Parts: sequence; structure tokens; C-alpha cells
Amino acid sequence: MRVEDDLYFRIDRLYAEYCACLDEGELEAWPKLFVEDGLYQMISRENYAHGHPIPLMLLDSRGMMLDRVYALRNANIYQPHRYRHAISGVRITQQDDEAIGVSSSYIVAQTLTDGTTDVYQAGSYYDRLIDGEVGLRFKERIVVYDTTRVKTLLATPI
Amino acid sequence: MRVEDDLYFRIDRLYAEYCACLDEGELEAWPKLFVEDGLYQMISRENYAHGHPIPLMLLDSRGMMLDRVYALRNANIYQPHRYRHAISGVRITQQDDEAIGVSSSYIVAQTLTDGTTDVYQAGSYYDRLIDGEVGLRFKERIVVYDTTRVKTLLATPI
Amino acid sequence: MRVEDDLYFRIDRLYAEYCACLDEGELEAWPKLFVEDGLYQMISRENYAHGHPIPLMLLDSRGMMLDRVYALRNANIYQPHRYRHAISGVRITQQDDEAIGVSSSYIVAQTLTDGTTDVYQAGSYYDRLIDGEVGLRFKERIVVYDTTRVKTLLATPI
Repeated sequence: MRVEDDLYFRIDRLYAEYCACLDEGELEAWPKLFVEDGLYQMISRENYAHGHPIPLMLLDSRGMMLDRVYALRNANIYQPHRYRHAISGVRITQQDDEAIGVSSSYIVAQTLTDGTTDVYQAGSYYDRLIDGEVGLRFKERIVVYDTTRVKTLLATPI
Repeated sequence: MRVEDDLYFRIDRLYAEYCACLDEGELEAWPKLFVEDGLYQMISRENYAHGHPIPLMLLDSRGMMLDRVYALRNANIYQPHRYRHAISGVRITQQDDEAIGVSSSYIVAQTLTDGTTDVYQAGSYYDRLIDGEVGLRFKERIVVYDTTRVKTLLATPI
Repeated sequence: MRVEDDLYFRIDRLYAEYCACLDEGELEAWPKLFVEDGLYQMISRENYAHGHPIPLMLLDSRGMMLDRVYALRNANIYQPHRYRHAISGVRITQQDDEAIGVSSSYIVAQTLTDGTTDVYQAGSYYDRLIDGEVGLRFKERIVVYDTTRVKTLLATPI
């Protein structure tokens, strides 16, 4: 098996696990896909393109992500919902000693308590992955959303 | 090639064939992806979570599936439509002597005769696959839909 | 690695690159995925099924595709938008000395300048691929859309 094939295969598995954690409601497993000092950031296409550092969500360690999940489970008030992700256009954009750069597209459909499902958000993932002892993990996932008119409160990570 | 890689590859092919049969209107080929005594069941998230055995659709042999397809072609009255599937989050959840457990997410878009396309349904597939002489086949596919407010009559399997 | 596995892997990479070019706004890179005398055609399901040769878009060389991109960048007037593709049901339908036939399904979500995202179009890709010195390229991509009620002007290729 070629080295590059194997890497794409393992990226596919990491992304499948990421989507499954969020879509199946296994939020506690989601921070484990990041390294200890990992970064999760969600920012609009416009702010990202202009270099404006104003994200909608910013979690810069696994601890903060676990806090976020704890708040979602225990403190925050929001309408229950379910996401379903669709991922495409996965490509390795950079590879150096530190990390593997990967970009991809997402479409997220959301079902609300009234039982209707609609497209909730679409955008890009710009990732930096680390290939460590436990396999591939996110060093950084920047979620750049195209959809600026968000239909309901954004509570759960995309 | 690692054994696990090869299995994921073959699951991808089976799922691609499944989606293609339904999306390209090749309904007659769809039951062939199941073993002879295969089970196809579609059930709401709520009923599934509470263990209530009231599915929206229940076909417990390949013969019943062929009957269903025959009825769709010849007897049932419903608005013509086309599905397009998007699949994500494929992961092997269990492996024993009997079968391979696999879960995944789906989003289905539907086009009606008026030419409009919308998200029709989203949910999870919970599968048990058998690896037999003719390759991987469904022993069981449980379709658990998030979308309880179904826009039009559900005629074709998801 | 089995030959067929490797071919599916390379088709996945080509399709990922195709989606990424269009979804990330790298339109200039899109014609390079076709051979010099490649064909890109977009046609309704109805016309395709009945053999009526009236496409919505027809570009029969890489030069014409570059022209189209140039026009989109410099001449055409249309509402700015972003696509996100979701691809499924990829299967090799034919293989001969000349080309590899592949079919697949797509769902395209679109975000407009008002910041809303919706399903824009769904349909099938029917491809003929050439495996040349620079890897897999499109000899022909026929885009057959289910969605006949197109929400806004179709400017960018699907």
C-alpha cells in the first residue's frame, strides 16, 4: 500500500469518527480526537478571509472542549437538535515535520424537536493533524462557515 | 493491505451500491444486497430509543423486499420522486463470528415532480453485515430516522 | 493492494479534487481535471432519458472550459454564491481499452449573499475517465440534474 493511500485512509477514519461523535450524540468522545493543546475554532468566511480574529466559538485546549460539552449537558439552555454531516473534497494541502494540513467541505443537516430536517450550515474545515502514538489527532480544526444566517442558536460544535 | 482497511473498503463499496440502486431507480437490485433471511426495518428515533417495536416499514426476508419493489412498480400509488443519499460517519462498532456491526449517518435529498429538491430525511443506519461467498451482504439494516415530520408519503426504502 | 481497490482510491481522489476546486472557488484549476478534448455537459434528467440533445451547458474542450471560467470571473453578471458538494454511490460501470465508465450521485448545497444555505441541485454524474501519464482525468462528465426548478441562475459548473 502506498504511503499516501494509507494516510488518506486514516484521515477518512478520523473524519468518520468526528462526524459520528457529533451526529450520534457522543459529545464526550469528541474532545479525545484533539491533542491536549488542540484548537477548535468556528469563524465566518468573511472574517476568515480578511484575517479578522473574531470567531463564533474558540476552544484552545482539550480541557476547554470538555468544559463546553459539560456546559451543553448540564448548564446551557437550547433547543434539542440532531446534526448529520456530509463531507467531501478531502485533500492534503501541506505536509511538514510538524503537522499535516487537510481541507474539506461540509454540509450539516439539522433536525429540530418539531421533527423537520433542513440544511443548517455549510462550509470548510481547515485542519492541521498530528500523527502520534495513538494515531491521527486534530492539532487544529478551523471551521469556516459560509452560512451567516444561522437558523437557531449554535450550541453544539459543527 | 491491513485487514481492517480492506474491510472498510468493501463496506464502502456495499454502501455505494446500496445508494446507487435506490438513487438510480434500480429497485430490483436492492434486495440482492441482503441475505435471504435479511431484515430491513425503518423506525423513528424515539421508538428505537425506547425499545418500542413499531416500525414504519418492516421487511424480514429478501422475498418480502422483492414483493415491496413489485408493489412499488405495479400497485402502489404515490408521487414519483428521486432520492439522492449522502453517507458519513461509517464505523465498525462490533465484530464477532456471526456478523459485523456498522453504523453510519445519512442525509437524503428528494426531488419531486414539480422539479424542486429538498432535504427529505436524515438519520442513522445500524447494520449487521455477513461476509459470505458472494461478498458482504446485509443481514440487517435498521434505518432510524430523526425526521418525524415526513414531507410526503414514504414509499421507497431509504 | 488489489487493482480494483487502487482504481477506486484514485477515483475518490479525482472526485475530491473536482469538488474542492468548485467549492473552494478555485475555478481555474477545474478545467485541468479534464483531458484536452474533454466534454462537460449538463442536461436535465428528462432530456437525457429521452435522448434529446439539448443541454443546459455544453463545453467540449478544455479551452472552452477555460473560456467559461474567464467569463465567470470577468464578464458574466450573477449573484455571488458558494457550492458544497456531497457525493455518493460511486461505482465503476464499464471498463474498456478507451476509458473507465463511472457513475455517482451528487447533492449540492448553495449559500447566497444573504447568508442562507439550501439544497440547490441533486442529480447524477456519468463519467468516462482516461488513465494517462498525469493520472486519471475526465474524458467526459455528463451532469444529469433531477432538479428542474433551479432556484437562481446557474452560472458555475456543478
